[in-house]
Amino acid sequence: MKTIGVFDSGFGGLTVLRELLPLLPGDRFLYLGDTARLPYGSKSRATIARYAVSSAKFLADQGAELLVIACNTATALALDDIREALPIPIVGVVEPGAESALAAAIASKQGAAASQILVLATAATTQSGAYRRTLEGLGLRATEKSCPLLVPLVEEGWLDAATHDSVTLEVLRIYLLEAMEEAPAANVLLLGCTHYPLLRPLIETTLEDLRHPMRIIDSAAATARAVAALAPQDVTSTASSPTRCEFYATDSIEKFQRLGSTFLGRELPEVRLIDLGG
Amino acid sequence: MKTIGVFDSGFGGLTVLRELLPLLPGDRFLYLGDTARLPYGSKSRATIARYAVSSAKFLADQGAELLVIACNTATALALDDIREALPIPIVGVVEPGAESALAAAIASKQGAAASQILVLATAATTQSGAYRRTLEGLGLRATEKSCPLLVPLVEEGWLDAATHDSVTLEVLRIYLLEAMEEAPAANVLLLGCTHYPLLRPLIETTLEDLRHPMRIIDSAAATARAVAALAPQDVTSTASSPTRCEFYATDSIEKFQRLGSTFLGRELPEVRLIDLGG
Repeated sequence: MKTIGVFDSGFGGLTVLRELLPLLPGDRFLYLGDTARLPYGSKSRATIARYAVSSAKFLADQGAELLVIACNTATALALDDIREALPIPIVGVVEPGAESALAAAIASKQGAAASQILVLATAATTQSGAYRRTLEGLGLRATEKSCPLLVPLVEEGWLDAATHDSVTLEVLRIYLLEAMEEAPAANVLLLGCTHYPLLRPLIETTLEDLRHPMRIIDSAAATARAVAALAPQDVTSTASSPTRCEFYATDSIEKFQRLGSTFLGRELPEVRLIDLGG
Repeated sequence: MKTIGVFDSGFGGLTVLRELLPLLPGDRFLYLGDTARLPYGSKSRATIARYAVSSAKFLADQGAELLVIACNTATALALDDIREALPIPIVGVVEPGAESALAAAIASKQGAAASQILVLATAATTQSGAYRRTLEGLGLRATEKSCPLLVPLVEEGWLDAATHDSVTLEVLRIYLLEAMEEAPAANVLLLGCTHYPLLRPLIETTLEDLRHPMRIIDSAAATARAVAALAPQDVTSTASSPTRCEFYATDSIEKFQRLGSTFLGRELPEVRLIDLGG
């Protein structure tokens, strides 16, 4: 049995944990949402790095032998700082996401060389240029688009007809039209924030309305596969020990359980409140 | 010359400072935006109190003799904690805002007894019930409406036709229609968040479209008058010393200067980065 730490500024990283659980049955998972200091996406590199390193250290102190930075902003701006601070393997979401985009580009009718990847992300992730550099390193053309209103819309829950999804569709239309001005040939859309998978049906509707089909990729599944490759399944453990999940948050437990279940796709058991200072 | 501290989680409190400056010329103002830990409005009471007390203490340590909590969320959830922690006079925004609403209700054709006050605010402010209690204590009927998307929309700057104000108008229409179901006779609208004065023209447009006229009140001017009454102008200082403003922020100086000038209505001079932990 291994202990795997999963960290996000809030709830979005639970979409990564959701993909991890079936790949690594019998392991112990520690999830930390740094909800007292979220959002990271609108803050500066120095502040994000300070928050991310203290969060990562907390999980290592709890026994994590491998750490997943299930937050695009923390990965884009603080992966090197976290790796310097901790002697355990660290997996971020940017590289797996970029590799998924490469696979989608290769499989597309344009092929990788003629493909253009459009990355939707927070302001901080976009400003860091981490996705663009990583995608260009894989030989892909890439454009990043900052979408500051998408996280608040997901957290407000305006995701279906009963909850004002018309506003969310209009915001998506505006962001995608602005992005397509810069990247008219984009054929792969990479969701560069762990909140965005919850918007996927609305993004598909918007792309249909704009008559601009794109293959949509998120990094959750690819990140989970990268973790499973690093932490290969211990065959004996599968049968003997059940998967254990422990949840920690730095702010309101009640809100964490309520919002978190949407991202994890099932009820959250006990969540423990911790204080990382501040 | 007195030293007056003004504190907000971010930039909104600058709308209060803007009203204070002409009332107290010659005084020294210290403004702190706790931008590394914003927003407060979506967080729990315990976390908000911890952040607000440490911010208030910082301003007292810098010499503030009187403190203005220019943040509705911090006032609603942490005013008592701040008063317990510091031996200096503390002025919040809830009481002056409520008194302005009372004055508007008395001046309305319905009169105070038949008036109904609608308060728009963050989730945390609404959940605290601070405005409802204070307004009811003044003999007024009050309804609070949580509007989590308004702060992100103001920070994204979607406030005029060139910047997608149609989305902001639609969000306002949804929030106001929902609020009016609960409070159909509302005739006074109290802006219970220091970000909202920037939405005032769009709120007026929305109310016209809904054919539901209301008197709009914000607490910035009333708070400034309450402070001036507590800190009467030293006559000799007016002529001799110029007003001094010092600005502190816990996150990105560049963003503080850029966004802050919109709220203050003029350029911000030097902003100092400070670390309150976390």
